[in-house]
Amino acid sequence: MHPVRVAVLGSGSWGTTFAMVLADAGCEVRLWGRDADVAREVSTARTNEKYLPGIALPPMTGTTDAAAALAGAQIVVVAVPSQVARATLTGLRELVEPDAVIVSLMKGVELGTDERMSQVIVEALDVPLSRVAVVSGPNLAPEIAERQPTATVVACADPDAARLVADACASSYFRPYTNSDVVGVELCGAVKNVIALCVGMAQGRGFGSNTTATVITRGLVEITRLGLALGADAETFAGLAGMGDLVATCTSPLSRNHTLGRHIGEGMTLEEAVAATGTTAEGAKSCRSVLDLAQKHGVDMPITQGVVSVLYDGLPVEDMARALLARPQKAEGVGA
Amino acid sequence: MHPVRVAVLGSGSWGTTFAMVLADAGCEVRLWGRDADVAREVSTARTNEKYLPGIALPPMTGTTDAAAALAGAQIVVVAVPSQVARATLTGLRELVEPDAVIVSLMKGVELGTDERMSQVIVEALDVPLSRVAVVSGPNLAPEIAERQPTATVVACADPDAARLVADACASSYFRPYTNSDVVGVELCGAVKNVIALCVGMAQGRGFGSNTTATVITRGLVEITRLGLALGADAETFAGLAGMGDLVATCTSPLSRNHTLGRHIGEGMTLEEAVAATGTTAEGAKSCRSVLDLAQKHGVDMPITQGVVSVLYDGLPVEDMARALLARPQKAEGVGA
Repeated sequence: MHPVRVAVLGSGSWGTTFAMVLADAGCEVRLWGRDADVAREVSTARTNEKYLPGIALPPMTGTTDAAAALAGAQIVVVAVPSQVARATLTGLRELVEPDAVIVSLMKGVELGTDERMSQVIVEALDVPLSRVAVVSGPNLAPEIAERQPTATVVACADPDAARLVADACASSYFRPYTNSDVVGVELCGAVKNVIALCVGMAQGRGFGSNTTATVITRGLVEITRLGLALGADAETFAGLAGMGDLVATCTSPLSRNHTLGRHIGEGMTLEEAVAATGTTAEGAKSCRSVLDLAQKHGVDMPITQGVVSVLYDGLPVEDMARALLARPQKAEGVGA
Repeated sequence: MHPVRVAVLGSGSWGTTFAMVLADAGCEVRLWGRDADVAREVSTARTNEKYLPGIALPPMTGTTDAAAALAGAQIVVVAVPSQVARATLTGLRELVEPDAVIVSLMKGVELGTDERMSQVIVEALDVPLSRVAVVSGPNLAPEIAERQPTATVVACADPDAARLVADACASSYFRPYTNSDVVGVELCGAVKNVIALCVGMAQGRGFGSNTTATVITRGLVEITRLGLALGADAETFAGLAGMGDLVATCTSPLSRNHTLGRHIGEGMTLEEAVAATGTTAEGAKSCRSVLDLAQKHGVDMPITQGVVSVLYDGLPVEDMARALLARPQKAEGVGA
């Protein structure tokens, strides 16, 4: 059998790591990016020191030539920054093979349109949604690059396309599970960052594992509630792309959202915390859109509301905790 | 309104902490234990330095006189070691008020009978199950004793009894949710220790947040699968007593199961790890009973199986990880 031919668009940390996963699993991989030095280094030295320092890559072709990368590719993996996805893909539309399956590794929502990344791909490449898959799970790139064992979810409306992608990336350290709930998987990826901010705030305030676990658990309940209102499948949220990614993000020191939240819990203002973290974490950008979306659908999201109040209305972290605990008592569950 | 009168049986770490929670919430609390020094210290100095060093307790009565503790108590909280629960409670049967609600804080299964603690209470005190409640959640005692915010589940077949207990313990830092699924809540408390062992092993082997989150997520799937076979409610496992307690236990350095697993992941034998941890962790004792129970009900529990193989059949941790990842690929979910 011929190896599956894959183009990976984006030679940053996650794109390069997923290219490594695919090559380790036996695919013929071309890694496309704008940086000619990175492309050359990937092809010849088999490293990407800028984004994956110290990691030995398997054989793959690095290139800045999109036509060469995409020619004959049965799978096209998209790992470019979410806010440039539409522009990048629109420019490559004519080069994508007509029956290729497109895989999104991107998290977040397009500013302005509020569209999820699968929606952006459908429009930019003019492909049916049944040919778009989303990969998401407890997948911190630096750990996968060290070939530590993990699992992930490959979500696609078409089970055959999901299976093609899962088979292409399965290896001794990477275990994909298939799922058909694209909306649910993408929603988890966007909202988890808001919950990670809240966990960081609590830990910065000096709270331990009980508080962390409570915020994660009740956070997942409110993500699930929003997902059900948007037509997602409840089981997705209990799975690797929901609970799995949320636990990894909320417990890892590698997460920027977690770090930003911790600074705020320790008493910094948002501006000071952004300066200290070196970047505006995704959750700080998206929490207001998530809350808007929830309010539009009549969904109660008290933790998201608390994060918005702390970041943008000056509510002390202490008071957020008190307000969350003072809510009327009720029975457990998504309806609660 | 008169304050609710509560007897707490067991003046160890969790019993004393929960007595503190009840007293902070406005109950009139009597804390019974066999240690006269502890009882005197609780009543007079308002501390329990042996079990909760550095914690200032609210006013409550410490006593070694069970009759005095139980007289007039509307709620009786049981926090004695699980293996002596039957003997202790049988001796107190005549002293318990006829309409008192009994609350179990105990985790684990009685050796020999394989009964859950609520079953032991029903038999030892000769009370109907509708008067037995179980409290469980992300509730590491030392953190609650510092009055850090957390939430918990109060499970009882009778919603009025659950509500009575929830109202009695709700305070500014402790938020109870009610639930009617006693079997599910007790099962979570027993099996989470086995999953925490596996997480500890993975971390001892050098794996990070992805692997931790994957084991926790897939671990919860297999606990849920067993619970459904035993008649529990799936939603319990996604809640505070399931996911919440599992996340707290698996991420806290305070968990003995986690510590024991880490030693084994670092290369110790079970005997060496028990010596280094200073105790046999609950999960190491119960993993074989859990696996037996699963096999009896035809339920697949690959992580539990892996832990048993590492602890008792000499399987290297490395090979357990490989075996878990090499299983046939499938769709996500409890049926998978």
